[in-house]
Amino acid sequence: MLGRVNHIAIAVPDLKAATSTYRDMLGAKVSKPQVLAEHGVTVVFVELPNTKIELLEPLGDASPILAFLDKNPSGGMHHVCYEVDDIIAARDRLKQAGARVLGDGEPKTGAHGKPVLFLHPKDFFGTLIELEQV
Amino acid sequence: MLGRVNHIAIAVPDLKAATSTYRDMLGAKVSKPQVLAEHGVTVVFVELPNTKIELLEPLGDASPILAFLDKNPSGGMHHVCYEVDDIIAARDRLKQAGARVLGDGEPKTGAHGKPVLFLHPKDFFGTLIELEQV
Repeated sequence: MLGRVNHIAIAVPDLKAATSTYRDMLGAKVSKPQVLAEHGVTVVFVELPNTKIELLEPLGDASPILAFLDKNPSGGMHHVCYEVDDIIAARDRLKQAGARVLGDGEPKTGAHGKPVLFLHPKDFFGTLIELEQV
Repeated sequence: MLGRVNHIAIAVPDLKAATSTYRDMLGAKVSKPQVLAEHGVTVVFVELPNTKIELLEPLGDASPILAFLDKNPSGGMHHVCYEVDDIIAARDRLKQAGARVLGDGEPKTGAHGKPVLFLHPKDFFGTLIELEQV
């Protein structure tokens, strides 16, 4: 069921500083910042040969990563996103196996314009998992 | 400088249960457990099309992931490993830029038999980074 790792998301309190660290210190190719108002984040993509890192900075008072940064003020690994072929089939299989899907259980349009779901980290050993249909 | 994401390491308190979750619930291909006594972990590889997840369970009283599991008893994302061509050049560049290399700063032989270094998470927005020369 799990396909490629689409991205690893890292929440950061200061996107400008984090972008500079990944570009100048680690020598990676980084995108320009993209404001995703409907997702409550500003994102910079770190492009690697086989996958990407998404550096996320909170945007607005309802940003979904604010609670994480309250607990981890200097930032940290926030979630892993896996690609799936059929997100409804994946969801139904997971629910049948007892996993909790966050929200109302219906896929939302993710940051890349594709259907996504998030799975409860307590069902996956502390890791927040995003599934994206590609 | 940064190359491929070699793996994402996830620390878990119960490797057998985590392996079952990734294999049976998430439908991923998993390896047999491998005891890495000199690294203080038992590891299961989750093979994905473009990279891998390493599920790590502590082994022994000096396991390097015990402190992490004390803080995160149900587990969590532990580190990201990036491939580099020349680990000494990478280290020297990072040190010159002010980043802290863990331990004595000399590469050790990692879990895949190749030279590795770890970088201080406080210099990378809360993310523990491993570099592996491939």
